[in-house]
Amino acid sequence: MAELATWSDGSTKSTIVDFVGRVTAEDGPDHVPPDARVAVFDNDGTLWCEKPMYIQLDFIVRRLAEKAAADPALRDQQPYQAATTGDLNWFGGAITKHYQGDDSDLKVLAAAVMSLHESMTVEEHAAKVSAFYAEGQHPTLGRPYRACTYQPMVELLRYLEAHDFTCYIVSGGGRDFMRPITTSMYGVPPERVIGSSVGLDFADGHLRTTSTPEFLNDGPVKPVRIWGRTGRRPIMAVGNSNGDIQMLEYAHAGPGPSLSMLVLHDDADREFDYVAGAEKALNEAQAKGWTVASIRSDWATVFD
Amino acid sequence: MAELATWSDGSTKSTIVDFVGRVTAEDGPDHVPPDARVAVFDNDGTLWCEKPMYIQLDFIVRRLAEKAAADPALRDQQPYQAATTGDLNWFGGAITKHYQGDDSDLKVLAAAVMSLHESMTVEEHAAKVSAFYAEGQHPTLGRPYRACTYQPMVELLRYLEAHDFTCYIVSGGGRDFMRPITTSMYGVPPERVIGSSVGLDFADGHLRTTSTPEFLNDGPVKPVRIWGRTGRRPIMAVGNSNGDIQMLEYAHAGPGPSLSMLVLHDDADREFDYVAGAEKALNEAQAKGWTVASIRSDWATVFD
Repeated sequence: MAELATWSDGSTKSTIVDFVGRVTAEDGPDHVPPDARVAVFDNDGTLWCEKPMYIQLDFIVRRLAEKAAADPALRDQQPYQAATTGDLNWFGGAITKHYQGDDSDLKVLAAAVMSLHESMTVEEHAAKVSAFYAEGQHPTLGRPYRACTYQPMVELLRYLEAHDFTCYIVSGGGRDFMRPITTSMYGVPPERVIGSSVGLDFADGHLRTTSTPEFLNDGPVKPVRIWGRTGRRPIMAVGNSNGDIQMLEYAHAGPGPSLSMLVLHDDADREFDYVAGAEKALNEAQAKGWTVASIRSDWATVFD
Repeated sequence: MAELATWSDGSTKSTIVDFVGRVTAEDGPDHVPPDARVAVFDNDGTLWCEKPMYIQLDFIVRRLAEKAAADPALRDQQPYQAATTGDLNWFGGAITKHYQGDDSDLKVLAAAVMSLHESMTVEEHAAKVSAFYAEGQHPTLGRPYRACTYQPMVELLRYLEAHDFTCYIVSGGGRDFMRPITTSMYGVPPERVIGSSVGLDFADGHLRTTSTPEFLNDGPVKPVRIWGRTGRRPIMAVGNSNGDIQMLEYAHAGPGPSLSMLVLHDDADREFDYVAGAEKALNEAQAKGWTVASIRSDWATVFD
C-alpha cells in the first residue's frame, strides 16, 4: 500500500488519511463505492511548479521565437520581438496591463498564440510538446521541467489510486500541452486530463488544430467540464488558486463526504512564496473549512 | 474468455476475431499496446434500436406532455398539442419538412425541447431519465426500452474488454440521457459516454442545465470529441448511419491496424429493415473496405 512518506506528520496528513479511511470503510456511514471515488487535481501550482512563469508560457515563447526565426519580417513585431530577444518582462507586462484595464498587449499576444495553432495535426502538436519536455529546463530550480512535479502530490495520486480512487487532472493549462507527459510524470493517462483547448477540425481522416479558442478551463468552467467528461461529482478536489474555487466548491457541496484542499506556496527556500492570485481561494478555505496544505510545514520533500 | 456466441459463423465474425487476434498478438506486426486499444460505438441503431423513432424522442414527447399537463395554456400550441394527443406524425412531419427546406415546425420543436432544460440540476435531470427507463416500453417490439439493446453488440463490448480494449459510446443522442443507463445496459460507465449536450451553468455548488445547446455530437464533431475526451485515435469504430462516417474514417485513417464497421438493418422480422440515412455510409463502406454487419445474416440472436 502506497504511503504518504513525503508528507510531514501533522493535521493535513491526518485529514487526508482520515478522509480516505472513512470513504473506504465498508460498513461506515461515509462509505463511498469505488466508482464514485473521483478526485480532481489542478496542475499549475498544484501538481507542478508554476513560477516564475507558467511552464506552458515558456513553450509558447519558444515557438514564437521559432516562428520569427523562420519569418524575419516578424522579428520587429510584438510578441515575436520579445520572444526572440528573451524579453520575458514584455509577457509579464501584458498581463499586468490587462489587470490595469489595458488589453492592448494581451490582444497582440493572444492573436499570435492562436496563430501558432493554425492547421497542425494533433499528432504534430504532440510531437512539438514532447520535444519541449525532452529538453526544457526550469530557469531557477536547476532541474528539467519534467522533474518539476511535487513529489508529495505524486505520492498522493498513488495513495488515492491504491484506495480505488480515480484521479483526473483539471487545469486551466492546455489539455494537449499536458497529455504527452502526464502518464510518465503523474501516472495519469490522456483520457483523464481535462484542460483548455483550441477548436479542432476534422478533414481527410485527421484532426487539425485551429486558431480559434474552444474553451478556457478555469473558474466555473471547471465543474462544467468535470461533469462533461466524467458524469460524476468529485468527492475530492485539490487546487491552489482563485481559478480553482468553483471546483473545490463543487466537491464540497456534494451530498456525502468530501475533501477540498488548497496548496499554499509559503516556502521560498525550496520552491516559491506567493499568494498572488490565491487570495480569494484562501479566504474561501477559511470560511468553508477547506484544508490548506502548507508546502513549508506539510511537505518533508518538495521535489523528487 | 468472452465468446461471440450470438454472432453467426461467417466472414463478419471472422473479421472481428482476426482483427482482435492481430492487435493482441504480442510479437506480431500489428500488435497494439493495451492502452491504445480504444473502440468507439455509436448508440442509436448500433447498440440499441432506433426505430420507429429515437428512444430519446419518446422521452422528450413525454416531458412535453407533462409540461402541458402542468400548464394547460400550452395545450393548444405545438409541439405540446401533438405531445398531449400522442400525434407522433407531427414530430416526424417536422423532420420531413426540414429536409424539404421548411424549418418552421423544427424551430418550434427545438425551442420547446431546449426550454425543457431550463434550470434543472444534472442530478434532477438524471432522476427524470431513470424514471423514464424504469417504465418506458418499446411501441412495437413488446419489450422495455432498457431491453432494446442488441445482444451481439453487448457481447462484442465484453469480448473487446476481455482483450484489454477500452470501449466508449459516441452518440448523437444526449450524453446525459444515456449515462444513467449505460452501466447497467452495456457495462459502459458514465465517463466513457460521449454525446450531445446543452450548456451547463455552475452556481451555489451545483450544475444546472440551460436552454442553450452546447454541441451536437454528430458527423465531423464525433472525431473532435473523441480526441477531446480520450486524447487517442480509436483503432475500432462501429456505427450505422451517415452521422458515423467521419468517426469510422478517423479509425480507418490511423497509422496502424483498424476495424471500421457498419451495422446494416436488414431484418424486418426480428428488428427493422431500412437504409434511409445510411446510404452514404454504405457507399463509403464499399469504397473503403469497411466491414458491414448484417443483422439478418450475422446475428444469430438480436435481443436478449
